[in-house]
Amino acid sequence: MVHNGIEYAMMQLISEVYGILKTAGLSNEELKDLFTEWDRSGLQSFLIEITARVLDKKESPGNLLVDMILDKAKQKGTGMWTSQSAMDLNVPVPTIDAAVSMRYMSSMKEERVLTAESYGNEKKHIRADKKDIITLCKNSLHFSFLLSYAQGLQLLRVASVNYKYGVDISEVLRIWKGGCIIRSALLNDLWKAYHDDPSLTNIIHSPRIRPFLASMRDDIASLTRIAIDSRIPVAALSASLNYFDAYCSAQLPANLIQAQRDYFGAHTYERVDKPGTFHTEWN
Amino acid sequence: MVHNGIEYAMMQLISEVYGILKTAGLSNEELKDLFTEWDRSGLQSFLIEITARVLDKKESPGNLLVDMILDKAKQKGTGMWTSQSAMDLNVPVPTIDAAVSMRYMSSMKEERVLTAESYGNEKKHIRADKKDIITLCKNSLHFSFLLSYAQGLQLLRVASVNYKYGVDISEVLRIWKGGCIIRSALLNDLWKAYHDDPSLTNIIHSPRIRPFLASMRDDIASLTRIAIDSRIPVAALSASLNYFDAYCSAQLPANLIQAQRDYFGAHTYERVDKPGTFHTEWN
Repeated sequence: MVHNGIEYAMMQLISEVYGILKTAGLSNEELKDLFTEWDRSGLQSFLIEITARVLDKKESPGNLLVDMILDKAKQKGTGMWTSQSAMDLNVPVPTIDAAVSMRYMSSMKEERVLTAESYGNEKKHIRADKKDIITLCKNSLHFSFLLSYAQGLQLLRVASVNYKYGVDISEVLRIWKGGCIIRSALLNDLWKAYHDDPSLTNIIHSPRIRPFLASMRDDIASLTRIAIDSRIPVAALSASLNYFDAYCSAQLPANLIQAQRDYFGAHTYERVDKPGTFHTEWN
Repeated sequence: MVHNGIEYAMMQLISEVYGILKTAGLSNEELKDLFTEWDRSGLQSFLIEITARVLDKKESPGNLLVDMILDKAKQKGTGMWTSQSAMDLNVPVPTIDAAVSMRYMSSMKEERVLTAESYGNEKKHIRADKKDIITLCKNSLHFSFLLSYAQGLQLLRVASVNYKYGVDISEVLRIWKGGCIIRSALLNDLWKAYHDDPSLTNIIHSPRIRPFLASMRDDIASLTRIAIDSRIPVAALSASLNYFDAYCSAQLPANLIQAQRDYFGAHTYERVDKPGTFHTEWN
């Protein structure tokens, strides 16, 4: 199930990048060549490979089959179960959540067409250098693929502890490397990270993974800004970026939420300066 | 339950805006005055009102209690149930999902402190005119509060149809207006929208609500860009923006996802040019 949750995230991320590149003016031929090239890079993976093949499948000379496919993505429920189970275990998996809710959004085709009309359905444009956009897209996929695995593997770890599964994460990674839909070159790095430190709570902490995330964060930030400017929805890319920025925030404004909860529901709070549980009569 | 899901979303949104305003250099005194002022504007609501009061609660001269509260937000599960139920019913509620997963993220305090250290924990800054930021924050809250209600009410509507509850949405809104944690001036507009058209699937379609969303979309986009630049996580604001931009997209890149699903799982697809269900041997 967690494998499939990660798969939902990776597919949504690829589709967002595909949409951005198309809007930036890449032809189908250029898209096919790019995904083929990426499949020989650090992004090498089954899903990138089949994307290149999908982008090479013509149904008549000059016409790609994928362009005739309706943009309603169905689902069998395994991505949803992953998000629901992660919530039961209090593990944040926002990239997977975004992929799941975007499947639902995609299936609301008739509503989307109506809304686009009533809000002004102008054609979307990206005005930026193609080469720059391609680099941003590549690094954004690398970054967000890593964080999709990070979320799924943390869920697996917490589930294993809570449900006493005794899952060996490096063994899971070895099996996934052997052949599955989310197999990728990145799994080699992840396997090494868990081999170095089997007690890893999240690959974000691994010294092997840190340089990649640290160096690519600003590229996914730039790509997200470009998408926002062009009114292109990037739910899974944004969720990955926000997940990373939140994980790197020693301080979050959640103290206000605890204050509000204590105000209206006497749910109590902890303090920064001393242990214990406190309640205040706010009024 | 849906009331509480919307409540989670609104609280997370307020906390994100509070965090941005603090980073932009507003003092506690200025924050208190601003929330007090907002509570006399179109944002008038119980949650804005109690935020102003929280920001006025000193524990000693010059020291606010909220600044001594630990940034770990707890939860009793009702937000989670809303997200999980929405997934069961295939209704996208991404702002609520983001609020739920940010509660989990907030509680991982010790991990966040470690990650912040290893990735370089520089102080966050926003370099922008205070008055401009305040306007962006106000409109972003208005926009994202509306979309939090939109998501919750759509869930309630779909649940009512599926489970044969016979819920009258305008009656729900009348009751919420009477007194509850998510009561707000905005509920008056929503009540009118459902009174005009009881069959409304989502308030995004309402001619009463459209001018607000249309005019404020670029402000929440600007605020999100500023937050991204400053490495401030804005999971719920981003989710609201992406939800809106996706809802307004007649075409999404989900055709690629359906192609991939048909490629590796023979899950079939629909076409844009003729009805029916199709499968292709891609290799």
